Amino acid sequence: MEKIEEVLSEVKNGTLSPEEAVARLRQQSYDDLGYAKVDLERLKRKGVSETIYGAGKTACQICGIAESLIEHGQKRVLITRMDEGKSSAVRAFFDDKGIAFSYDDVSRIGIAGEGKKPDGIGKIAVVTGGTSDIAVAEEAAQTAVFLGNEVIKIYDAGVAGIHRLLANLPELESAKVVIVIAGMEGALASVVGGLVAAPVIAVPTSVGYGAGFGGLSALLSMLNSCSSGVSVVNIDNGYGAAYQASQINHIK
Amino acid sequence: MEKIEEVLSEVKNGTLSPEEAVARLRQQSYDDLGYAKVDLERLKRKGVSETIYGAGKTACQICGIAESLIEHGQKRVLITRMDEGKSSAVRAFFDDKGIAFSYDDVSRIGIAGEGKKPDGIGKIAVVTGGTSDIAVAEEAAQTAVFLGNEVIKIYDAGVAGIHRLLANLPELESAKVVIVIAGMEGALASVVGGLVAAPVIAVPTSVGYGAGFGGLSALLSMLNSCSSGVSVVNIDNGYGAAYQASQINHIK
Amino acid sequence: MEKIEEVLSEVKNGTLSPEEAVARLRQQSYDDLGYAKVDLERLKRKGVSETIYGAGKTACQICGIAESLIEHGQKRVLITRMDEGKSSAVRAFFDDKGIAFSYDDVSRIGIAGEGKKPDGIGKIAVVTGGTSDIAVAEEAAQTAVFLGNEVIKIYDAGVAGIHRLLANLPELESAKVVIVIAGMEGALASVVGGLVAAPVIAVPTSVGYGAGFGGLSALLSMLNSCSSGVSVVNIDNGYGAAYQASQINHIK
Amino acid sequence: MEKIEEVLSEVKNGTLSPEEAVARLRQQSYDDLGYAKVDLERLKRKGVSETIYGAGKTACQICGIAESLIEHGQKRVLITRMDEGKSSAVRAFFDDKGIAFSYDDVSRIGIAGEGKKPDGIGKIAVVTGGTSDIAVAEEAAQTAVFLGNEVIKIYDAGVAGIHRLLANLPELESAKVVIVIAGMEGALASVVGGLVAAPVIAVPTSVGYGAGFGGLSALLSMLNSCSSGVSVVNIDNGYGAAYQASQINHIK
Amino acid sequence: MEKIEEVLSEVKNGTLSPEEAVARLRQQSYDDLGYAKVDLERLKRKGVSETIYGAGKTACQICGIAESLIEHGQKRVLITRMDEGKSSAVRAFFDDKGIAFSYDDVSRIGIAGEGKKPDGIGKIAVVTGGTSDIAVAEEAAQTAVFLGNEVIKIYDAGVAGIHRLLANLPELESAKVVIVIAGMEGALASVVGGLVAAPVIAVPTSVGYGAGFGGLSALLSMLNSCSSGVSVVNIDNGYGAAYQASQINHIK
Amino acid sequence: MEKIEEVLSEVKNGTLSPEEAVARLRQQSYDDLGYAKVDLERLKRKGVSETIYGAGKTACQICGIAESLIEHGQKRVLITRMDEGKSSAVRAFFDDKGIAFSYDDVSRIGIAGEGKKPDGIGKIAVVTGGTSDIAVAEEAAQTAVFLGNEVIKIYDAGVAGIHRLLANLPELESAKVVIVIAGMEGALASVVGGLVAAPVIAVPTSVGYGAGFGGLSALLSMLNSCSSGVSVVNIDNGYGAAYQASQINHIK
Amino acid sequence: MEKIEEVLSEVKNGTLSPEEAVARLRQQSYDDLGYAKVDLERLKRKGVSETIYGAGKTACQICGIAESLIEHGQKRVLITRMDEGKSSAVRAFFDDKGIAFSYDDVSRIGIAGEGKKPDGIGKIAVVTGGTSDIAVAEEAAQTAVFLGNEVIKIYDAGVAGIHRLLANLPELESAKVVIVIAGMEGALASVVGGLVAAPVIAVPTSVGYGAGFGGLSALLSMLNSCSSGVSVVNIDNGYGAAYQASQINHIK
Amino acid sequence: MEKIEEVLSEVKNGTLSPEEAVARLRQQSYDDLGYAKVDLERLKRKGVSETIYGAGKTACQICGIAESLIEHGQKRVLITRMDEGKSSAVRAFFDDKGIAFSYDDVSRIGIAGEGKKPDGIGKIAVVTGGTSDIAVAEEAAQTAVFLGNEVIKIYDAGVAGIHRLLANLPELESAKVVIVIAGMEGALASVVGGLVAAPVIAVPTSVGYGAGFGGLSALLSMLNSCSSGVSVVNIDNGYGAAYQASQINHIK
Repeated sequence: MEKIEEVLSEVKNGTLSPEEAVARLRQQSYDDLGYAKVDLERLKRKGVSETIYGAGKTACQICGIAESLIEHGQKRVLITRMDEGKSSAVRAFFDDKGIAFSYDDVSRIGIAGEGKKPDGIGKIAVVTGGTSDIAVAEEAAQTAVFLGNEVIKIYDAGVAGIHRLLANLPELESAKVVIVIAGMEGALASVVGGLVAAPVIAVPTSVGYGAGFGGLSALLSMLNSCSSGVSVVNIDNGYGAAYQASQINHIK
Repeated sequence: MEKIEEVLSEVKNGTLSPEEAVARLRQQSYDDLGYAKVDLERLKRKGVSETIYGAGKTACQICGIAESLIEHGQKRVLITRMDEGKSSAVRAFFDDKGIAFSYDDVSRIGIAGEGKKPDGIGKIAVVTGGTSDIAVAEEAAQTAVFLGNEVIKIYDAGVAGIHRLLANLPELESAKVVIVIAGMEGALASVVGGLVAAPVIAVPTSVGYGAGFGGLSALLSMLNSCSSGVSVVNIDNGYGAAYQASQINHIK
Repeated sequence: MEKIEEVLSEVKNGTLSPEEAVARLRQQSYDDLGYAKVDLERLKRKGVSETIYGAGKTACQICGIAESLIEHGQKRVLITRMDEGKSSAVRAFFDDKGIAFSYDDVSRIGIAGEGKKPDGIGKIAVVTGGTSDIAVAEEAAQTAVFLGNEVIKIYDAGVAGIHRLLANLPELESAKVVIVIAGMEGALASVVGGLVAAPVIAVPTSVGYGAGFGGLSALLSMLNSCSSGVSVVNIDNGYGAAYQASQINHIK
Repeated sequence: MEKIEEVLSEVKNGTLSPEEAVARLRQQSYDDLGYAKVDLERLKRKGVSETIYGAGKTACQICGIAESLIEHGQKRVLITRMDEGKSSAVRAFFDDKGIAFSYDDVSRIGIAGEGKKPDGIGKIAVVTGGTSDIAVAEEAAQTAVFLGNEVIKIYDAGVAGIHRLLANLPELESAKVVIVIAGMEGALASVVGGLVAAPVIAVPTSVGYGAGFGGLSALLSMLNSCSSGVSVVNIDNGYGAAYQASQINHIK
Repeated sequence: MEKIEEVLSEVKNGTLSPEEAVARLRQQSYDDLGYAKVDLERLKRKGVSETIYGAGKTACQICGIAESLIEHGQKRVLITRMDEGKSSAVRAFFDDKGIAFSYDDVSRIGIAGEGKKPDGIGKIAVVTGGTSDIAVAEEAAQTAVFLGNEVIKIYDAGVAGIHRLLANLPELESAKVVIVIAGMEGALASVVGGLVAAPVIAVPTSVGYGAGFGGLSALLSMLNSCSSGVSVVNIDNGYGAAYQASQINHIK
Repeated sequence: MEKIEEVLSEVKNGTLSPEEAVARLRQQSYDDLGYAKVDLERLKRKGVSETIYGAGKTACQICGIAESLIEHGQKRVLITRMDEGKSSAVRAFFDDKGIAFSYDDVSRIGIAGEGKKPDGIGKIAVVTGGTSDIAVAEEAAQTAVFLGNEVIKIYDAGVAGIHRLLANLPELESAKVVIVIAGMEGALASVVGGLVAAPVIAVPTSVGYGAGFGGLSALLSMLNSCSSGVSVVNIDNGYGAAYQASQINHIK
Repeated sequence: MEKIEEVLSEVKNGTLSPEEAVARLRQQSYDDLGYAKVDLERLKRKGVSETIYGAGKTACQICGIAESLIEHGQKRVLITRMDEGKSSAVRAFFDDKGIAFSYDDVSRIGIAGEGKKPDGIGKIAVVTGGTSDIAVAEEAAQTAVFLGNEVIKIYDAGVAGIHRLLANLPELESAKVVIVIAGMEGALASVVGGLVAAPVIAVPTSVGYGAGFGGLSALLSMLNSCSSGVSVVNIDNGYGAAYQASQINHIK
Repeated sequence: MEKIEEVLSEVKNGTLSPEEAVARLRQQSYDDLGYAKVDLERLKRKGVSETIYGAGKTACQICGIAESLIEHGQKRVLITRMDEGKSSAVRAFFDDKGIAFSYDDVSRIGIAGEGKKPDGIGKIAVVTGGTSDIAVAEEAAQTAVFLGNEVIKIYDAGVAGIHRLLANLPELESAKVVIVIAGMEGALASVVGGLVAAPVIAVPTSVGYGAGFGGLSALLSMLNSCSSGVSVVNIDNGYGAAYQASQINHIK
């Protein structure tokens, strides 16, 4: 969309007819697979290459989209929320292409292609309230690494034993962005938000039972944080938190 | 119900006793199978033949209702929300009757009988936000075709890459009615509603996770659309959207 | 947006520089008042002129937007949800301009400028469940008239005395579109939806108490209608229902 | 509890010591099985013998409670919400005792012992909106029969084809109490409530999808009924509706 | 509606033309005031004369409806939920007509016309949990008296001091129907339901604060009652409970 | 209730007839004012004298209940949730009786009669998250003092600056029971629960906005506390927390 | 945290360098296993040793944490919410260590190590409304015993047959703390709260169906209890109730 | 808290006794006003001076806290959510002190003291969906300026006329952080999130009606955004969004 001036210049120069201009604007921007319109401009527009959200897609569709991305020049592909069942078909697909592929069944993340060097301003801390939040935390941590960030992990530092958090304050304070991941009452986000100067991105998790209502309790808790500098993403959305943390860590 | 004058005339003419009149009013209107009172007047009353909602019915009950409809002269039967498991028994039933039957396991729609020629004013566009919305979209698209409409499909044109939608504006604008199908935050309905002159029927889907609450987020979003000309049907109700779209497309 | 080919042609012909082209695309489309970007293309894009939603706007802002619309050629302006308090200032503004203005304190609708002749396919029926739903019904009815439709009003025909509805079936059946407005349990939408062939747009109202939860009960009821051909707009949104009904009634 | 005067009289007469009096008041009233305190006074207090709610109880516990009831003189036992899996163990138990036992897998009701003759004032009508509500309707119908009532069944008479209900008005009007069972939007309760003079007990069912929210839509609808004379029981609670209907039908 | 046979007979006898028959069926049944279609057949259909729900109606509309009812022969009119402000205009209206009128500002009930003698089977008990529930209780009690019932009042007998309820057991047990009115946790309905043989109609009230959520807590409590024989009406709906209690108390 | 053996003994001794026994059991236990059944046995049963909940009661009713309590020997009366408007009438009433009365407009608590000496095991700490929680905190603190407890107040020690809480740890640890009062996200309860050995009673407050939903966020947070030893009372229920804290502090 | 003065003294005495002091404060307090930071100070801080919440942890993680606790001197370990599947691996682990281990599949509690003698002030009563609440009740009872309390069990004493509860009043009144466990409408908590002088900790259970909404009904009911002295823990949280009951029973 | 090593060093050097060390740690960190513990370390800890949240505080309390902050060296004070009524008392207070004070009644923000020069990395864009969102937007914009940021305002650019947003893309793309403020369906956040590379902080507003449920619809919409790089703060929390945006814009 932002390249309209360039296209207009070519039209003016006569190197492009109006019809061709419209067609080019349209064709360049995505690849239409029928079941998906693969966004080929995301890297240009968002500074970050396209990710494949694996849930609700067949292995076939995941591979089709990945193929389109790679054919159009994307060097590495992140696939999130991919069940272990689908991962073997996807692995076979990348093996055929001679592209390295790894899958982690805790975070359910698959990664194709060569890694990226860390190039952020500083580090991103990923803190969890409990052991059960680790699956979400790993989605966040691996996404952050994929997007070119160094990650500090501080797991199981919930407020039931707050000394465990305070003991890790120096590490926490060294981070440029902090991702706080907690279920149950989600109090950790407010406590961390009160302690550090860095922006805090809070991820409520569906960990808990009863009146936790699948993460609602933690979500409301985090939205109502009495500490400044806390924003929130969807329940269990480790990927989204890491994405924004990486945006912040790459600001310039 | 609307034929009361006719019946009254016959009573007046003496060709019908009052008792017979009441009985006829009652008997003509439905076929009582015990577990179902098959509505035989729907075609007359609603202009559209009766559909069988397959969920919560046994294969037996589906066949029984279909049989009643066909015996009373209905030429084609649409069965929605039918699990693949039930479809074989239903297929066998129609094979026995020598009636063509097709089943699609994406939309879970079964269709018995000969097709209908498109006879609407124009086309109905079916637009989805993502790949995962396609099952609902296909329920809508196949229902629309069954009811005599031509359909334009624009799948995976969500607002995360809005150029994919803008690139399809000419197709969108050519439609007489637009069905927008989206999960997650359902923003696509408002965006399309702001771009086209045609009425938009929005279908929230249960696609998403966490604070999507099974489609509630998309539902509320669509109900609160800031664009005029958007109305909403139940979560995942592709059939209902297509039904009304077809009503609109056949207005005269 | 849809005129990009035209602009490109002018660029190609040399009658427009690329910079001018971009500026023109931008300037023509809206009037920026700071607190509002008045949409000047709505008529072209949506086939219907811009409406002013009065709630949450000062009388000053309403007049400013109206002025912009009129200056850019719009002949009549509909203002919805305008408190009686604001209406006098707005009336004074239009008096100064020599433009006719009327305000109705039941529907809280203000209308400036000359009326429009009915030019729809047929009539729109506005049906309410009770007497208390009339404010919303009048918002719908007056909007429909403003947009060029003839309206049939059937008020207080709720299901507690269903013969009142059945007695009006001929009128109901004569309409091309039916707007059903009901609070409490909102059952009227399903009953009407089962009786008529026309599309039904249902408007839940906040009329009721207790477990009505401000219209939620009626809203859910209407979304879950067992009758086909019913779609729903936001609680108390008489304007929205009329807008879409008018779209449908003007289809061609 | 109501027999305190009698016990006091015996104390006064010297036939009972105060300690014995307290003990007797306590011992007579229930049989303590550890996991259950079987209420042996229900028949005296409520006029109706004890029912066993089968959900959340093991087959063992069901048999233990049934045994206690029978040993204390109850002639017939109604067991509700019993999975088919448990029913064979329960059947074996009653076979051993030489007590007749029947199980119905639609309503999931088991009945032990000899039947009761209908002894109510009149008939109870059980009306459903659709075919999928029949499981709940059968729970209601069989409970009503067990409690000594005659039952009229009118199934699949929902408002999408209201003539099916109107055609059954004479039967409906002949009932002393009407139980209306409906899912989705639950509009049937209001419509019936507007048509008959008898009290209506409404049972919302969890039939539906999306914004039906497991019966919440129908529940709210029924609670907000604009018709007088409608009261409501819990979602899917066919037993509870029949219990109260039977109370009403046995009033004197 | 139920008189269709009669009308048909007259048509057969030639004393009525079909057109006249339809017109008569339609005209007799209600009086159309524009803002209201006054139901003139309610007495015949429901056995109880029409009530005016005062909320959301102007004093003018209330008087108009009352006038229509009286002109068509109804002898007494019950007006519920009428603010004190409107009651003076309504009183003036009835004074002009020479009809007795009384208004009670606790229950907000107005009654016009001569009283009705109690003619029910027995008595209706109205029990409240606390002092703050009395407004709703009086709506119930006065409605019950208006409809021809004797009423026993047991106020402030909540479970925080359950001996207050037990001490009134004989009165409770003497009633043919029991209305239980409670806010907060609404536990009283279950306790009463466990003690008496009569049907219990429970009215949750909006009394309470915090997690009472305007009556939701009491409502859910009552719907989930572990005692058999409890049905529920809308929050604060004293009228509705009394209406059904009266239906039950007049069964024959 | 617990005195049944005593009454039975008197019956046995012939000093009491059965009829008198029943009457006495009934009469002694409460004073029936019509609008209230004043519980005269609460002190005996619960160990604590009766409190008057002022909300939803008229000044008249409050005085009537207080009079009954005092006449039956209660020495001091606590009145909660009493609006300042009612307090003058109540003050006049106690002045007439020559009974000391004080009213505090922050906590809206009125106290009549002589104070009670602290006689608990230790102290009760009342901790708040913010300044806006003080009204609820004062309701708790003054109730606790009224019930014979010493109170430590630690106000505005929320987790946004957790050093403020840690600095008060010695005071906190010296308490036998801790009441934590917080709105917004309510995280303070978990943090305190993780730090102290004493039982924590958490009071969510309605302080906050937006997704705080009137205290729901804090309520859910506290119910889902990851720290052991935290229980919760209703939103803004300072009285209830203090009541239970006093029970605990007087255990023996 | 509370030992900072001691450490500071050692620093002052020169027996500890500042760096060592900080390290010691940090190292002593927890054992970092990567996936868990085992809280080694809980006994000192809370007076009660660390419990392992088994849900969401692998058998491996459970064993790892248990090992850390035992190595650091904890003599007995309570593991809650452990599926039977995991219990065998855990049992094998403790067998290897020569530590006694027992698992109960009703409460899903595992206990390693030697028992503790009851050392509380008095007894804790565990009361349930029904048979289906027993799993939660056993979690509470076994936790209470583990923490050194004597327990009175009164199961299935719900308000549908309140004499069952009244008959057990002497036992109830003998307890120092009462835990009330109930699903459905949870009325039992209020009734018990009105009868006993001891503090009541209420546990809503997810037992029920329909509008019980997984325990929400009972939860709201208990939070809104009209009886004083009732506090509430999370749905199904038998452990939490027992933990606080034990705190209260060990107060001094 | 983070200065513990320094204090420990002084203790080691003998310049500080352990008792003094503890006292100093405690005293320095906040100023205890009874109703508030003013956080004096926030600047050091969070890099940003303390803000006063005006809602729920008396003018007196606001002035007291402001005085404490200024006395302890803070140069400028931001007061949010301050009603116009309180602003005059606060203004008088600062006039007395000779400190400049300004109050804006749209955003309800008061600012005392000298301004701060913009010193961020780039600009912050504040975008609103409509005119009614401006109050929240101004809270955000003025907070951002107060915290040392340059702000770009793009108001009324909602998706109903998306060309208004696209026309402002260059400005949007020039920002380092984007704050999107929208009510109703909140779709703007996703659309902007799909267009820009910068992190987007979304603020749902309570603007709307009906099924907007006071901002819930927009909140859920934003949490479920299908665009990456969107995080969310509480409903109407313009301050919180600006605070975090400023953190991001000052990262280094």
